[in-house]
Formats: sequence, structure tokens, C-alpha cells
Amino acid sequence: MEDLGGLFAPKSIALVGIPRSFKIGTLFLMALKDQGFAGPIYPVNPHAAEIDGLRSYPCLADVPDPLDMVIVMVPKGQVMAVLEDCARKGVKSVILYTSGYGESGEREGVEEQKRIGEMARKGGFRLLGPNCMGIHSSDSGLAFFPEMPRVSGKVGLISQSGSLCNLLMKAFEPRKVFFRHAVSYGNGCDVDLPELLEWMGKQPDVPLLCAYTEGVRDGRSLAKALETIAGRKPLVMWKVGRKASGQRAAAAHTGSLSGDETLWNALFHQYGVLDVTNLEEMVDLVMALHHLPSSGQGRIVLVSGPGGPVVSAADAAERCGLRMASLEDLTAKRLRSILPTTGTSCGNPVDVGLSASFELNLYMDTLHVLTEDPNVDAIVVLGGGVTDEGNQTYTEGLIKISEGTEKALLAVAYPGFAQLEDWLDPLCGARIPVYPSPERALLAYGRMREFIDFCERRSGVSRV
Amino acid sequence: MEDLGGLFAPKSIALVGIPRSFKIGTLFLMALKDQGFAGPIYPVNPHAAEIDGLRSYPCLADVPDPLDMVIVMVPKGQVMAVLEDCARKGVKSVILYTSGYGESGEREGVEEQKRIGEMARKGGFRLLGPNCMGIHSSDSGLAFFPEMPRVSGKVGLISQSGSLCNLLMKAFEPRKVFFRHAVSYGNGCDVDLPELLEWMGKQPDVPLLCAYTEGVRDGRSLAKALETIAGRKPLVMWKVGRKASGQRAAAAHTGSLSGDETLWNALFHQYGVLDVTNLEEMVDLVMALHHLPSSGQGRIVLVSGPGGPVVSAADAAERCGLRMASLEDLTAKRLRSILPTTGTSCGNPVDVGLSASFELNLYMDTLHVLTEDPNVDAIVVLGGGVTDEGNQTYTEGLIKISEGTEKALLAVAYPGFAQLEDWLDPLCGARIPVYPSPERALLAYGRMREFIDFCERRSGVSRV
Repeated sequence: MEDLGGLFAPKSIALVGIPRSFKIGTLFLMALKDQGFAGPIYPVNPHAAEIDGLRSYPCLADVPDPLDMVIVMVPKGQVMAVLEDCARKGVKSVILYTSGYGESGEREGVEEQKRIGEMARKGGFRLLGPNCMGIHSSDSGLAFFPEMPRVSGKVGLISQSGSLCNLLMKAFEPRKVFFRHAVSYGNGCDVDLPELLEWMGKQPDVPLLCAYTEGVRDGRSLAKALETIAGRKPLVMWKVGRKASGQRAAAAHTGSLSGDETLWNALFHQYGVLDVTNLEEMVDLVMALHHLPSSGQGRIVLVSGPGGPVVSAADAAERCGLRMASLEDLTAKRLRSILPTTGTSCGNPVDVGLSASFELNLYMDTLHVLTEDPNVDAIVVLGGGVTDEGNQTYTEGLIKISEGTEKALLAVAYPGFAQLEDWLDPLCGARIPVYPSPERALLAYGRMREFIDFCERRSGVSRV
Repeated sequence: MEDLGGLFAPKSIALVGIPRSFKIGTLFLMALKDQGFAGPIYPVNPHAAEIDGLRSYPCLADVPDPLDMVIVMVPKGQVMAVLEDCARKGVKSVILYTSGYGESGEREGVEEQKRIGEMARKGGFRLLGPNCMGIHSSDSGLAFFPEMPRVSGKVGLISQSGSLCNLLMKAFEPRKVFFRHAVSYGNGCDVDLPELLEWMGKQPDVPLLCAYTEGVRDGRSLAKALETIAGRKPLVMWKVGRKASGQRAAAAHTGSLSGDETLWNALFHQYGVLDVTNLEEMVDLVMALHHLPSSGQGRIVLVSGPGGPVVSAADAAERCGLRMASLEDLTAKRLRSILPTTGTSCGNPVDVGLSASFELNLYMDTLHVLTEDPNVDAIVVLGGGVTDEGNQTYTEGLIKISEGTEKALLAVAYPGFAQLEDWLDPLCGARIPVYPSPERALLAYGRMREFIDFCERRSGVSRV
């Protein structure tokens, strides 16, 4: 079987079945133009001579040049004929958007899907789908949805659901996390999750992987793929269809057999996969893995103006398996000389008091002292100013602190201080992840440390 | 002992130790003015003749009129003398902002705090604090922080932390959840959580309670208070100091003995207390309890444009103990006549397909059909338009659907569709709670149903 590389870097693309007027199908063309796909694009539609300024061809055979990739969106009844054309034309990869196969729940659909997989193998091309959106890969000018980021990043995303691909890219963009490749593979009748994982695992320019899946056909290939990744790159996986209700939903969505939850959990445990159960958890964790240094031992210190939230945060730290840093005596002494004597606390959590919102240097001086404590690896800070101007001073202060230290700094945009969305741009731009609560910051950091610990155990390095 | 009613409706207030210039202490005066407190306010400061346009008195004894409430913010060394003045003056309630007592961790502070409690009992007044912010109660014009909502609502909030009181009020305001009373009780040396709970429990105009606490002195009184509330009003409680790290933090914050987590869990279970572990969970749950009807059996249906997120949501529903509604045959038939044939699903979850974002009537027609299915009690809908205009049409459509049904409708503002904050105002205004993910919507609704089930079990009504 052909390596998957061709799927991610085609030199020419035909769009078979692209509609003449604005419908979902036209998004594929808009997306390619939007990303500036450099090679030739050939619309194929027997009812149009031209689509959106490009010459259109009645059928694939009429395209005069060789074709690397064909995106197929014809009605189901025409799919097999188009795939035969692809084989004849020597096409290397096919993205099959058409749906109504395994996910229909009807025997006919399931059998047709099987025939499509066989056709791909006989025809000598690799096929993504059916019921998928395809590939987003900025460096190659590939995309399946317009108005997506044009920045090529470090994350590889493999998603069975095309809309989740879009939603995840949209959710990551303001957090300054960008994708090197994002794949929507749908029902996965030829190219499936294990092969995609293994391929992405081998790419040196993709150091961080995440996946959304509803199930796989072949558990053994999955285990083999995970084995190649384990302990080398973090893989954050959102496996759905874990409960009976979700399994029925998965069957209706991509025709997936979700498999037994216990088996999946065992796989995750064995290979150090970071499993998540919703989009927020995925976004939170990938943001931490992407922005934060992995050095140190994960000993955290909590800093806050309002005292209440950090008591809860201290609970959360323990629940997440994180260690609260024991501050050096010198640190406590220095903090006492900075902070007001009442309504504050110089232990961990550090309570800088309510007046710190008016005197923001209390936050910054405290953070500076903490960056110099060798017992501290990570700082979670909750606070801000009371005005927009104050908040700008605060975020600029955090950026300066972060630039002057190797320690991990995580910010919390808490209600009453700031809207999370307002802080994403300045802080994530400076690689300071921002969370809406200390609990979510700690959970993300705790999971990140879990991966680091897994890697160390796996490589036989023991921790003192 | 005097009933707590006086604390919540004083006719006159003195502010003892209020600073002349802008410091934290001046916030109390700003807050009272901001809420339009109707009675006289007497600043007491020996160094000023006038503060912020009000005549200032050198000491409490000089105030010519009787006093219902005194807010004390003098340095610690002067507190006992001021409390003696309060007793002499026949003051009914005292709010003691000054800190440095039980939470200092020093024996002296602990003993002083004990003496303050004794002083209150001897002096015939009720005392809130020390180390507290006091009471917000719009109907009485009471507040401890400026720029707080001036709307009187249905929720009673009891919080050991003053800043969490503020933060919670700020978080609830855009969600159209308002407080009848909010209390910050600090170290609770006289008025403590159990008495506040019992009093709030008896108020007919406070149908929904929430609390933040770090610990109580007397577990038996707490159990007694919970017994009076159990099964009558929902009580959402955020108990922190559950783990060793949090217990140390709680001791430093309010000098609380947090108690054994197992005991707390047992109490919560016995009395149907809805325990939460962070601010998001509390906000999510209170929003559901506040806005949604409690009728029906909690059978839910999920509706979405993008297919991926609802597969995960179906898992979440099961994890939250919710039942997925079995749609009637007629419903499925009606949905099939509305929705496109491919890329959709007419089961539960209902997948309205990606084109619904362009044709928003697909959402609305689907929702309308589902409101007419007798097997459905609640609908969770994830979607939206692709433009601001589309989103306005969408939210207006949801409001119309909600107005025409008795069923619970919960909206999800998902990344790629809308910012949660943009939908709070229109939707929460129409009592449609909005969540950033279907998982959080389901968790909140699931917890709400848990309370309803508890009430039914307790009242001996069995469910078929």
C-alpha cells in the first residue's frame, strides 16, 4: 500500500461533482483558493463549462493532465463510476465526501462501503472517507473549509468528524495553537485511524498529536500504532461512543463500532494516551502541552488576590496529583516584605490580598520572587486589575515575568476580573496559557505532567 | 439569641474606621450609596469632620441617633473598644471586616476571636465576621462592593469568602440570575453557616440556595440546618478544604477546620445537597435550577448540526444518569420529511446536518417537532448560524420555541458558532440557559434532576 504522504501534499486536484451554485460542495473550492493552493484545480461537472472562474470538465477522463488528488462529492449512485475513472487516470489519492454508507445503518450501505475500500486497493489509490471532509494542511495549500487559519503549526489532528476538525481549529486559533495537518477521515473504509496515527507519529515536524474518534475496525493495528508513538509524542485522544447511548449515536454518525470502554481505557493506560471526554478538556490540555516548558518536577505554587478561589484550587491540585511547592524560607521572608500584613498569606497558596487589584505591582513583585524559588516549577496566577487599563498593565506584567523565567506560568481569567477571550490574544501569544478557572489550569497542567512522568517511566529514568 | 432578620434589613448604619481617602474601606460607603441605602449612614473617624459629603463622628457614642448596624473596619487593636461601644449603644448587628484572627494561625488571634464571639453574646448584638465583607441585599439597599446588580432576585448566597461573593454575583449577573441576599460571613465566630442556612431556608422569597464554605465549627448544627432545608429547596454547596493542601489553605484564609471529606460527603448525600467543586459547576447548576422547569421525567433529546459533538454528548448524558428520550415513530417520520436525506440522522441525537447552519429553519422546524413529542422532557441544542445575522435569527428562533413549550430547552454556544458571552443576554433573558458545551449542559441538567428525584424519594412519591 502507498504511503500516506501523497494525501498531504498533492500537486493537482480535481473536484468531481462540485455544484455550479453556492452549496456545501463549493466550500471545498473556496477553501483551496483561500489557502492559496498552488497547483492546478480542475472542477468536474457535466453541466457547467466554468465554475468560479475555472474551466470545468464533463468527466475525469477529460482532464488533460495527470491528477494527484480527486475530491469526490457526487451523489452515491455515481461514486463507483467516478472511482473507476480515478483508477484509470492513475490518481494517487481520493477524498470521498459523499455519505450514506456504513453510517446509514442499512446493509446495503455497509456493503457498498466495503466495495469502495476494495476499489481503492484494486485501483491503486488511497481513499479517505466516505463521509469525510478531507485534509487541512496549510503548507500544501490544502483545506476543506474557508476562513481557516493560514498559519502552519506543530499539531497533528486526526478526527473522524469533519465538523469537529473545524470546531477544534476554530477553538485553537485564538489560543495560538496551529495545526500542521488536520484530517477528517469519516467512516475510514481505507485510510483509518491507526495508519494516520502511525504516519503522523513519524513526522518530525508534528511534535504534538490529537485525535477524535468514534471507534476503529482493527484494535490490533491501533495498539501497534500507539506503540510507535508511546512516550515519544503526547497524544490527546477524545474517544466517544463509550456508553450505550454514545455508541448508538456513533453508529448513526460514522457507522463506527465503538468497542468496549474497558479495552480502550486499558490501551490508553498502556500507551500513555491522554484521554479526554470533551472539547474543553482537549483544548485546555493541548494548550498546556503546546505552550508550557516540560522541565522541572511539576511542583506548583498558587497565587491569588481573592482568597476563596485558591482554597478550592489547592484541593484541585491534590486531586490532579500535583504537588504543592514547599516555598523556601527566604521566599516567605521576601513575600512578607512585599505584601500587606493583613488579609494576605505568604504560604502556598500565596494570597496577595484584595488591594493587589489596585496595586498591581503586588502581583508582579510576588511572581518575580516566586520565579526565583528553586522549589517552584510552575505558577498558577488568578487576578487582574479593576479597569481595562489595569488589566492591560497586568497582562503586560505577566508577559514580562514569563519572559524572564524558565518556569511554567499559567494565567486564570476569573469572572469579575476579565473575559477569557480578551486575554487569549496577548497571553497565549506569549505562550502563557489562560484558563477560566484555577481548577481547569491545574487539571491541564496535571495531565501534562502525567505524560512527562509516563515518558520517564517508559525510558527507565527514575525520579528521586 | 436575636433572630438574623436584623442583619438583612437595618434602618441605619455606622461605618467605624472608614478611611478619609480612597482605600478598600471606602468601598463599603460607595456600595451603600450605589444601592441607594435609604436610612442614615454615619461615618465614624476621629480624624475627619466629613467623609464623602456625610458628617463624620469621632466615635460611636457621638452618633446622636440609635443604630441598627455597625460596620467595623478599625485596626485590630481597637476592635474590642468599638464592640463595647456597640453594646452600650444598643446596636443590633455588627459586621466586622477587620482580619488577623483565627486565620492568622497564631494562638493570640484564635483567642481574640473567641473573645469577640463572647462579646457579641454579652453585648446583645449579632456579629458577622471577623474577616468578612458583610451583606448584599438590594431590597434593603445593603451592599459591600460598588457596581453590583441593583436587581433583587430569588437566590440566597452564603459565602465564607467575600471575594467569592463578589465573583459569584458578577458571574451570575449576565446569566440573569440575581440574589435576594448574599452574605460573606468570614471566620464566623458568632453567626455561622448553620444558622445562616436555617434562616435562609425559612425565607419564602428565597427558593434557591447556594453556599461556599471552608468548614464549620459545629457539625451537629449543620446537620440540623440541612434537615430543615432538605427536599424543600435546592442547596448548591461548594465545600472547599477537602484535601490536605486545601485544608491548609482554608486554615490560612478563614482559620477554618475543614473536617473530614467523608463526613461531608455523607451529609450531602443524606440531605440531598448538590455539592460542586468549582465556580463553573456552581454557575452552570444554579443557572439550570433558576431558569428551567422542573416538570417531566428528565428524558432528553440532543439536537445538533455538527455530528461529532453530540456523539460525545450522548456519552455524557449516560454518565450524568440522564435518560435519552425514545422518540415517537411519528416524530421520526416528521423529522424525515423536514431534514435532508444524507448527512443527517432522525434518531436521538438528532443530526440536522451541516446545511442547517445556512438554512436555520431546519433547526427551528426540528425543535418544534420535538416539543410536540410526549416522550421528550428536555432538549439540548447545539448549533447556530454562520454570520452574526444568522446567529440573531437562530437565538430569536430558540426564544420563540421556548415560549411555545413547557419543556426544558438548553442551548450550547459551541466554538465556531458563537461566543458564550454573546448569547447569555438574549437567551438567559428568556430563561434558556446557555452552556459552552453539551457536556456541561447535561451535567447541570442531570444534577437538577438528581435534586428533583431526591425530593420525590423523600416525600415518598415513587416514580413509575
